[in-house]
Amino acid sequence: MKFGVVIFPSKKLQDVVNSYRKRYDPHYALIPPHLTLKSAFEATDESAKNFADKLRKIAEKTSPFSLKTAKISSFKPVNNVIYFKVEPTDELFTLHSEINRELNDENTEYAFVPHITIGQKLSNDEHSDVYGSLRMTKIDHEETIDRFHLLYQLDNGSWTVYETFRLGKE
Amino acid sequence: MKFGVVIFPSKKLQDVVNSYRKRYDPHYALIPPHLTLKSAFEATDESAKNFADKLRKIAEKTSPFSLKTAKISSFKPVNNVIYFKVEPTDELFTLHSEINRELNDENTEYAFVPHITIGQKLSNDEHSDVYGSLRMTKIDHEETIDRFHLLYQLDNGSWTVYETFRLGKE
Repeated sequence: MKFGVVIFPSKKLQDVVNSYRKRYDPHYALIPPHLTLKSAFEATDESAKNFADKLRKIAEKTSPFSLKTAKISSFKPVNNVIYFKVEPTDELFTLHSEINRELNDENTEYAFVPHITIGQKLSNDEHSDVYGSLRMTKIDHEETIDRFHLLYQLDNGSWTVYETFRLGKE
Repeated sequence: MKFGVVIFPSKKLQDVVNSYRKRYDPHYALIPPHLTLKSAFEATDESAKNFADKLRKIAEKTSPFSLKTAKISSFKPVNNVIYFKVEPTDELFTLHSEINRELNDENTEYAFVPHITIGQKLSNDEHSDVYGSLRMTKIDHEETIDRFHLLYQLDNGSWTVYETFRLGKE
């Protein structure tokens, strides 16, 4: 089955993000607003415990860190994804690279651009309209991240949490 | 905000349950298939850490246990909910009562009937049709439960996992 590793930001930020996703993100009903640390990858069902053991060790040696977002950006022309840009901190990069090194790392050729998606699978026209109206939006949000989650995907495309990993804890 | 405590069964069982929920449960997109240990209750945002501490202690002293489901049942005439009946074991009852005693226990006047909902908010006619066609369905499923989850509800009605508690672990 498919696994992924994500951070769910605070309820406050999730509610703001969902106010956009509701209109612009066809994955709105499949998973709560999130920052992806490891995108979907295939592994056997039995891998879950093994992955969780590895992620638990990474979480233990990682301290809670700050997440800041200040603007809306887009991956166009790579793809028509609009997102809250998350400030690229050392803590996030370290966490991302450790997780991808410890789990299977076949889909890590691309650069890590920390983000929280608010719109995707938009046509070029939709993208222009939406991004045009949102690109100057000022956001001023900062919060502390103290956990991340291992998820698996159900047959209908939605995601269930397998386990939570608290930073700096065992 | 609203909190709840649930067990997510295995992906296998969740996929089966979703094949029904897709047609019969308007909450299909809001939360994965689950067995409710503590139904939605209101508490301050800051309560999450306190609840998690209490649930972690309960999980530590609870061993993994077996979950069996063999038939489809209904809460009618109380309400038009159709569900996979889960065998009422001592382990489930103990876990349920400890969780409800430790967290706020205002909504525990009703008897605990362990179940996994497959349909709800059906009209009387829909309920008759659906339950009539499903009531004789034989299910033969058993699995081991080794974790449960604390969730909170977003403004759009969907649920995000705050933390996972593994049984018998710290």
